[in-house]
Amino acid sequence: MATILKGAPVVAAMNERNAALCEQLKAKGITPTLAVVRVGEREDDLSYERGVMNRCGKVGVAVRQFVLPADATQEQLLQVLDEVNTDDGIHGCLLFRPLPKQFDDRTIRAALRPEKDIDGITDGSLAGVFTNTDLGYAPCTAQACMEILKYYNVPLSGKRAVVVGRSLVVGKPAAMMLDRENATVTLCNSRTRNLPEVCRQADIVVVAMGKMAAVGADCLRAGQTVVDVGIHVNEEGKLCGDVQFAAAEPVVDAITPVPGGVGTVTTSVLVGHVVQAACKKAGV
Amino acid sequence: MATILKGAPVVAAMNERNAALCEQLKAKGITPTLAVVRVGEREDDLSYERGVMNRCGKVGVAVRQFVLPADATQEQLLQVLDEVNTDDGIHGCLLFRPLPKQFDDRTIRAALRPEKDIDGITDGSLAGVFTNTDLGYAPCTAQACMEILKYYNVPLSGKRAVVVGRSLVVGKPAAMMLDRENATVTLCNSRTRNLPEVCRQADIVVVAMGKMAAVGADCLRAGQTVVDVGIHVNEEGKLCGDVQFAAAEPVVDAITPVPGGVGTVTTSVLVGHVVQAACKKAGV
Repeated sequence: MATILKGAPVVAAMNERNAALCEQLKAKGITPTLAVVRVGEREDDLSYERGVMNRCGKVGVAVRQFVLPADATQEQLLQVLDEVNTDDGIHGCLLFRPLPKQFDDRTIRAALRPEKDIDGITDGSLAGVFTNTDLGYAPCTAQACMEILKYYNVPLSGKRAVVVGRSLVVGKPAAMMLDRENATVTLCNSRTRNLPEVCRQADIVVVAMGKMAAVGADCLRAGQTVVDVGIHVNEEGKLCGDVQFAAAEPVVDAITPVPGGVGTVTTSVLVGHVVQAACKKAGV
Repeated sequence: MATILKGAPVVAAMNERNAALCEQLKAKGITPTLAVVRVGEREDDLSYERGVMNRCGKVGVAVRQFVLPADATQEQLLQVLDEVNTDDGIHGCLLFRPLPKQFDDRTIRAALRPEKDIDGITDGSLAGVFTNTDLGYAPCTAQACMEILKYYNVPLSGKRAVVVGRSLVVGKPAAMMLDRENATVTLCNSRTRNLPEVCRQADIVVVAMGKMAAVGADCLRAGQTVVDVGIHVNEEGKLCGDVQFAAAEPVVDAITPVPGGVGTVTTSVLVGHVVQAACKKAGV
């Protein structure tokens, strides 16, 4: 029986820490404030937005919404970002992507100031992750994986970690953050041969393939900690991850559930970044 | 008997390519121009500078030297970089580092425009390496490893690569560039346990530890390609690498020599970047 690495206690600890910092900021007359910039009304975005607003409310972070119609122009969005950049009362910005196709993603990302990029989408933030400096902020899902591993005291230094999937939002930054903790990290991709064998060599397996149930018991062994980043809806309408949970759980030492794992923690990381940005600015 | 992956033919091919591009630029009245910015007279810098100037001369790249005394101020250096940034006749800049201690490395690096950063020292260039976009230029030594592997047609896609050492000038960018070629890459560091076993799992081993003769036959097996980035002077006053060449050569399939391997190619990569920068600007 594996230990189930639930997100809830990680979130509770983070909320507590963030709320305490918000209190300190409040004493200085500062309310950490998140700008949510959304183009259109995509259901995924709206659902994530509700989660973020809810979490923000709980710890004392204010939210300002900037909503553009789905047919907004690049100029209009750049103007909103300029407002976000220059408004001293805004500490961080969440911009929903992918953007509709009239936008040039690179131009838009480049327009946001890295110090307000609490979602890790700018080149500044990504350079910070790569070079291990405090430029910008790490992508939230990648950091959520790390928060879970740290909360549950999973040893990383000198351990072997395998990251399956190399996206810029999860796989690559997670690999860099595991390296920062002195793990020996292997980054797998869709061309990786004999993925099961490569996975079994790891002490920690982070699965961020975006493929439902792609990792089964053949990829796993006793002693491992598995972090499942995937989130899918199966044929029965139930949420599930990239890992075959029922097959994996009896084999490994510890595993994050889906739902209730990485996804739950991501929002708290985002909110934590806003609080951090406000603290940095105020010198708290 | 391993194939010796000498740098010389790689350099010859690169020189030919660069000279041809210089001819095309010349026809448009453009001379690709490198600014060499040096503070003080450190012997290592002077020797590398001579090599660069020599290689530039061979292919038709002009060099402009900006030399400051060892006790120059940060202001003075920033002024030089401003001149380099704004001078349309300069296509790339090589700034020798580490700088004397009166300089703040981060401020100085941030002052150089990424499009002139042909040595891959800015956050822009490093973000480009991490995100696989054409922002700036990759660090030259890391790219030299890739040029050798490509020249000798070493298969990378689907292969396992191990990079030993995680510096920002070699290890980390080399890992990203191998990933870009669809290798499954493991990044090792000084805390890696059982390094020999990890190395033996690889098809390609890139050694950039900066430790003389640290990798011996126990880390290697038949079928491997070894790229040795190290350069040291041994007790007998001879140049040698991070790999025990005499022990490794009978075991592996292919190996780069020291001297005459990666180091030789690095200068050509640098010169190639200047030519590329001039071509980009001229639309060639």
